[in-house]
Amino acid sequence: MSAARTFLRAVPHHVARRAVWATPRAVPRIAIPASRIPTVAAVRFGSTLPPRNPSFTKVTEDHVKDLSNLLSSGGSLMSTLDGSALADELVAYNDDWMNKYHGKSQVVVKPKSTEEVAAVMKYCNEKNIAVVPQGGNTGLVGGGVPIHDEVVLSLANMNQVRSFDPVSGIFVGDAGVILETADNFLAEKGFIFPLDLGAKGSCQIGGNVATNAGGLRLLRYGSLHGTVLGLEVVLPDGTIWNGLRTLRKDNTGFDLKQLFIGSEGSLGVITGVSIMCPRRPKTSNVAVFSVESYEAVQAVFADAKDYLGEILSAFEFWDQQAYAVVRKHHEEHLGGERKVFENEGPFYCLIETGGSNAEHDEEKLGNFLEHVMSEGKVIGGVLAQDSAQFTGLWSLREGIPEACGKFGSVYKYDLSIPVGKMYEVVEKVRARVREAGLLKGDGSMSDPIRAFVGYGHMGDGNLHINIVAEEYREEIEAAIEPYVYEVVSEYKGSISAEHGLGVMKAPHIHYSQDETSVKIMRDIKQLFDPKGICNPYKYLP
Amino acid sequence: MSAARTFLRAVPHHVARRAVWATPRAVPRIAIPASRIPTVAAVRFGSTLPPRNPSFTKVTEDHVKDLSNLLSSGGSLMSTLDGSALADELVAYNDDWMNKYHGKSQVVVKPKSTEEVAAVMKYCNEKNIAVVPQGGNTGLVGGGVPIHDEVVLSLANMNQVRSFDPVSGIFVGDAGVILETADNFLAEKGFIFPLDLGAKGSCQIGGNVATNAGGLRLLRYGSLHGTVLGLEVVLPDGTIWNGLRTLRKDNTGFDLKQLFIGSEGSLGVITGVSIMCPRRPKTSNVAVFSVESYEAVQAVFADAKDYLGEILSAFEFWDQQAYAVVRKHHEEHLGGERKVFENEGPFYCLIETGGSNAEHDEEKLGNFLEHVMSEGKVIGGVLAQDSAQFTGLWSLREGIPEACGKFGSVYKYDLSIPVGKMYEVVEKVRARVREAGLLKGDGSMSDPIRAFVGYGHMGDGNLHINIVAEEYREEIEAAIEPYVYEVVSEYKGSISAEHGLGVMKAPHIHYSQDETSVKIMRDIKQLFDPKGICNPYKYLP
Repeated sequence: MSAARTFLRAVPHHVARRAVWATPRAVPRIAIPASRIPTVAAVRFGSTLPPRNPSFTKVTEDHVKDLSNLLSSGGSLMSTLDGSALADELVAYNDDWMNKYHGKSQVVVKPKSTEEVAAVMKYCNEKNIAVVPQGGNTGLVGGGVPIHDEVVLSLANMNQVRSFDPVSGIFVGDAGVILETADNFLAEKGFIFPLDLGAKGSCQIGGNVATNAGGLRLLRYGSLHGTVLGLEVVLPDGTIWNGLRTLRKDNTGFDLKQLFIGSEGSLGVITGVSIMCPRRPKTSNVAVFSVESYEAVQAVFADAKDYLGEILSAFEFWDQQAYAVVRKHHEEHLGGERKVFENEGPFYCLIETGGSNAEHDEEKLGNFLEHVMSEGKVIGGVLAQDSAQFTGLWSLREGIPEACGKFGSVYKYDLSIPVGKMYEVVEKVRARVREAGLLKGDGSMSDPIRAFVGYGHMGDGNLHINIVAEEYREEIEAAIEPYVYEVVSEYKGSISAEHGLGVMKAPHIHYSQDETSVKIMRDIKQLFDPKGICNPYKYLP
Repeated sequence: MSAARTFLRAVPHHVARRAVWATPRAVPRIAIPASRIPTVAAVRFGSTLPPRNPSFTKVTEDHVKDLSNLLSSGGSLMSTLDGSALADELVAYNDDWMNKYHGKSQVVVKPKSTEEVAAVMKYCNEKNIAVVPQGGNTGLVGGGVPIHDEVVLSLANMNQVRSFDPVSGIFVGDAGVILETADNFLAEKGFIFPLDLGAKGSCQIGGNVATNAGGLRLLRYGSLHGTVLGLEVVLPDGTIWNGLRTLRKDNTGFDLKQLFIGSEGSLGVITGVSIMCPRRPKTSNVAVFSVESYEAVQAVFADAKDYLGEILSAFEFWDQQAYAVVRKHHEEHLGGERKVFENEGPFYCLIETGGSNAEHDEEKLGNFLEHVMSEGKVIGGVLAQDSAQFTGLWSLREGIPEACGKFGSVYKYDLSIPVGKMYEVVEKVRARVREAGLLKGDGSMSDPIRAFVGYGHMGDGNLHINIVAEEYREEIEAAIEPYVYEVVSEYKGSISAEHGLGVMKAPHIHYSQDETSVKIMRDIKQLFDPKGICNPYKYLP
């Protein structure tokens, strides 16, 4: 590894300082003052939101009193109808954290137990009151906030670890356990939660399952469809479905839990999660490279799989525009010049390894580095030397969404595309907005579009496009949509790789699903929730 | 590793000879002469089979003519009704390979394309003709054979690889591709099918998915719920559902394919499979140990996870009784004394590793061996020195079901039990039959029960109990059932870890699933197959 170490630079000290290169892992749960809330018209992507369904009952003070009584064993309720809360206190539940969607709910219930959730759902179903289940409210498609006056059912009070078996690695917890809390709990036992994402400090494991969150280490640990072993779900009519199994294998009928994974709260409220957790790697490494082209990114990815094999735990990539936004963010908001690479390039990739033997991993990584450098596949690189640098390098990638958010109003696209074609999609859409005269230079503040960045989880074929605009504007959206979805459809991709449908993408589902599929989905929704009270206005068109 | 090598013996040459220690991987597809077929009463486990549903149409020669016409583009049909087949030629489709269940179908259709499958299903649905989809017919619960006169829809003619992408490792193939054929195809490209099981020479990938097959390497590659990326399914009314995605991530609605994984043909006919295949390990090792107790098996398992980490690919165990049956089988059927271990023990375990660096793997394995031997956790062991020995050692484990089958009539139980309690279940049920006077000695040919063996996939908590009887007899079954299911239920296990429900376990589903779950399953079945023509009499009670 010595030659590799000589060529590669260690991480510059400033990159390693997590406080400086703030990561967006812990999304702050700050109530946004009402004065800051733009009107819906100003922030809504595209056409108007679905109108309120008049068949739903409008919640009254009497309903609030009844609901309060159902929570007597420990849950809590906040409502402007009975004066138990001020309007401002409900903003954090009504607004999504991107500040794009703004519900008008007057009631937030926070049950303390599965039985309380069941009582609330039974009551609401009987009274025809619409409900939106809410986890950490870190979603990106407006799936977890009310659209009109739905009751918000927050899982925040259900936050207990129920059990952990160190022999099998099976963790069982309430839906409202914060992902990072679960992972810290597991770290002490030598295990790891098989999911990691930027919002881990706020998002909840129930919400993660409900949205089939993907995140940073899917490459290694697979999707929640494979790792979740069981769920406890309160169905829309208040029935508790006890599917909280702790068995790795069980072939006794349809695997019903799978329907709830990724159902975005449309079939019921997940109240408990059983999940198989692998042993935590004893040793981890991370390196970031600059490379000449997207073809080179692909070549490095193939080599990483070849040389690193079973220890490869993440492979991320981003383009120069993304890197520029992160650097700009740093310079403007955090102060100072922060050059990480001697040789910058049009593309960057991050490689993480995790294994059980430090010496073996270092040797594998050394062989890999020697190879990609001697073949000229990378033009520069930095290798973390300690855990602070490890975090610092990750922040170059994880900091992209936050940096974009600080730079302007962001149009976000989360696409699945065959790996070989991923960057073609970025180029096509970028060319489109350039032709429309919306993207003139490279990040001038006066351009309608200030930055157009591409990045993503290479190992999963998951591309993120963030288009940073001066402000949300009809002409910008018209230039991008439905064009971006048409391109995805042409490449047989998915218009939502991991963010889900919510209210944002429900109208666009047909770009990824045919009529037969949508018909079956509607039938299943009807089967579970005939009154349609569970998270209405979303998911299915 | 030298100390370990000195202590451990290499595999004796005779074990390594695959021809001698025949594995049951390739289940021969031999038509069983009608004279060998016992009556249903003699072989049926427990109560009588469900009666024929009189609402299904009896197939006539006219129907056969119509069906033949639907297959004109390449498919074939065999029927005794139009003289295109003799009764003997249909036996291989009517009988399961355990020779326990014996259908009376007079028609076997073997479509060549998805469109032909669709035409057949549409026709049968319109005419109210019951259909049983059939893959390699290697199932163990009577799920893939007719119970009465259902039309057999064999996928054997749909056996083409459709595509393979060496960048992503995504394989797409017809449902009728033989598992071993798929794996051999992938081996040439440096990839591996993420599923392996004894019947791989006969079973088909569509059947594997329909039954959610588990097998030998689930520990490493996870379940089909995680690895299958897409399915093409012909629904009971003949609609083709095109869910044959090749995306690792896709959050656009309910993950409908999950419903078909493990649905045992009750919701439609799987015609195409898209699956994510990992790179084939460049180096593999296998070792077998004899140990003093089940506690020691667990300790070795914990150490294996600790020392072998990411390269551990299988951990199997079996008891002395299982080993004795395999040895007896060898002595009686294959000739000669074949002692594998210097120190035999009450338990054995097999460890397989697979990795990308031979030297690293050998060192990890060496450290592990040093540890378990110096701690006295194992009393003997053999380590494969070449690929023939690798196969030979695997055959000690894989040969158990075949050896039991040759020894008598086998009652098979396939259970999920928390790892720590697995062998308690074996002991409880063994004590039960001993108390009933059915198991006197250790495998005397005159005992009602000749052998009572326990083995399984330790890593998955999957226990197999094989009870070898002189013959199937009411009193034996009455002693075992429902007792074994009650014990499983008490341990919160599953009465079918990987074999499925079929006709054998459908009546027992309530030991593993509550009323709410069964009600939802029935509703889903009704939604997809309102006429109930798709694989009737099975799966749900």
